Amino acid sequence: MGSTRGTFLDVTAAPLDLPALRSRIDLALAEFLDEKSRAAAMHGLPAEVTEFLRGFLFSGGKRLRPLLCVIGWHAAGGHGTPASTLRVAASLEMFHAFALIHDDIMDNSDTRRGFPTAHRALAERHRAGRSGPAADRLGIGAAILIGDVALVWADELLHTAGLRPGQLADVLPVIDTMRTEVMYGQCLDLITTGLPTPDTERALAITRYKTAKYSIERPLHIGAALAGAGPAFRAGLSDYALPLGDAFQLRDDLLGVYGDPAVTGKSVLEDLRDGKHTVLVALALRHADRAQRRTLRALVGNPDLDDSGADRIRRLLDGTGAHAAVEHLIRVRRAQAEQALDQSFLPPTAISVLRELAQDATTRSA
Amino acid sequence: MGSTRGTFLDVTAAPLDLPALRSRIDLALAEFLDEKSRAAAMHGLPAEVTEFLRGFLFSGGKRLRPLLCVIGWHAAGGHGTPASTLRVAASLEMFHAFALIHDDIMDNSDTRRGFPTAHRALAERHRAGRSGPAADRLGIGAAILIGDVALVWADELLHTAGLRPGQLADVLPVIDTMRTEVMYGQCLDLITTGLPTPDTERALAITRYKTAKYSIERPLHIGAALAGAGPAFRAGLSDYALPLGDAFQLRDDLLGVYGDPAVTGKSVLEDLRDGKHTVLVALALRHADRAQRRTLRALVGNPDLDDSGADRIRRLLDGTGAHAAVEHLIRVRRAQAEQALDQSFLPPTAISVLRELAQDATTRSA
Repeated sequence: MGSTRGTFLDVTAAPLDLPALRSRIDLALAEFLDEKSRAAAMHGLPAEVTEFLRGFLFSGGKRLRPLLCVIGWHAAGGHGTPASTLRVAASLEMFHAFALIHDDIMDNSDTRRGFPTAHRALAERHRAGRSGPAADRLGIGAAILIGDVALVWADELLHTAGLRPGQLADVLPVIDTMRTEVMYGQCLDLITTGLPTPDTERALAITRYKTAKYSIERPLHIGAALAGAGPAFRAGLSDYALPLGDAFQLRDDLLGVYGDPAVTGKSVLEDLRDGKHTVLVALALRHADRAQRRTLRALVGNPDLDDSGADRIRRLLDGTGAHAAVEHLIRVRRAQAEQALDQSFLPPTAISVLRELAQDATTRSA
Repeated sequence: MGSTRGTFLDVTAAPLDLPALRSRIDLALAEFLDEKSRAAAMHGLPAEVTEFLRGFLFSGGKRLRPLLCVIGWHAAGGHGTPASTLRVAASLEMFHAFALIHDDIMDNSDTRRGFPTAHRALAERHRAGRSGPAADRLGIGAAILIGDVALVWADELLHTAGLRPGQLADVLPVIDTMRTEVMYGQCLDLITTGLPTPDTERALAITRYKTAKYSIERPLHIGAALAGAGPAFRAGLSDYALPLGDAFQLRDDLLGVYGDPAVTGKSVLEDLRDGKHTVLVALALRHADRAQRRTLRALVGNPDLDDSGADRIRRLLDGTGAHAAVEHLIRVRRAQAEQALDQSFLPPTAISVLRELAQDATTRSA
């Protein structure tokens, strides 16, 4: 879920007009929030909830998951892009807002998309008349709540999408599965953060659940399910989606350590300071000699880590070969994803956009 | 949502066998968690999530909302108690687990049902190898996550209840409405806590959204919707549910200040220390003279409040007449609820259990 930097998928010339789709997804979100604002005003309820979510949703974001949902719909032979499909796609973005807001609390993050995170912004807004700790706690409480609202409204967007009963019955199990998977991914992430180990299997499981399934595979499946695709068709999509999703997160891990903050909008200290249990760090710990391992353990997860400490970690990630190994893993997985496309019977428009995505997701700098 | 003390609704001799229904609801919850445990084990995912939720759900709770759902089903002429209705009822309890776990973080509460709250218990469990603040933060993060899981699984319980498409279509809007309402109630609660004012309207709005609608009215509506009841029938249920729900919360507010912790399982300091914006406190502020108001402002919401300070507040709540006024509000609302039953055309079994509930909810000591 950290994988939200920058603006790839800006493929204006693609056969599927992604920028136009993105506008329609944003319109669906905006209209839903407008309805919610009107309802709140009518009942004398605070406008802050809808306005905060509006600000969060429109402060950035690539709309990756909703676009993949629409691509999955087309891949499975869905015609046009009906409003109901778009509204399900929009519901994935609302769910993602929930996930990011809560994720930022759990990660104790200060910034997201170049702005203060929800809990920080809400603490500032309500600081007047409260003690510092009380305002900070209120910021966290309010961000938990606004995340909860986003999750509940993701459901409502889905329930009111205007799906046929058969479509709803087909798509609900996929959505439920996706949600449980991302929760487990987050759980693995949370309990390993701060205590990184050489366990690469565990790090790959986090990558798989938190990103590959959540951000790539399941959005494609959801769109395909809306178009009536069965398990065999979805399995074919997974052959592409899972290696690509892993590669996408591995690239994200590298950007979190080696990226340009001016481009990614995110600190290159935070992941290291938090001690995120990434494949990159696990590989370094595995291949380090005793002295290197001692240094890594002292620095990774150290809340006082500074720029020079981070530089030392980077030299160790390079020196142990972990950095190069992750680049290799990315190449292998991208090749697997492309091979899956070569062997697939998807419509050419879908193949073309999925091929472009495979390139962008693995070579991006933001 | 604070309204979960004790064990009223223990009406063994009632025409609707509530204890038997409660056992079936618990069985539905336990079976669902068993499925989730097996699935997690199969995928090598942590058992902690399901085991924690199981411990939380079975550490207490009156099952008020699921029972009201079943009562609503019977009130609207539903026959027997089919497994699908029970599973929807169980989904309300799973949603309530979510609400309580997040509520306790927002309220910074230490205990719930006589046990450490989720975020406190999870901090202890993961303290090894972490600094104090890091473990506390992890406890909060893990409790946010486990609450999120409960919400997602509440959805899954509902989606897999085996409802007919028409039933699902009827019930989803009521569920969505309930969830948005309780979120707004929580929002009002959160932004007013610590800064209580003489604004009784605002305090009554919190009562209405956080308890009356969420805990009484909507569960009845959900059961009635499953049985095919339309808006007019549901409005009739509201005539009973809303005044009773208000009275229920007003009683809860009194128990939170005057209750016996050995019976309620909850501190009589916490609400006052947090500065909860209750009708009780709002009325006291409204009717206080200048000196009394100054004392109330200094003590209510003071994080260092001790027993003798709480005693001073109680004397002021008595002296301003606020305590007696809240007792009066409870009596008036209970009478309204009973009058609504007198004028209703509900089946006698439903009327009998709703009448008993009206008495228990307003006169309880736990």
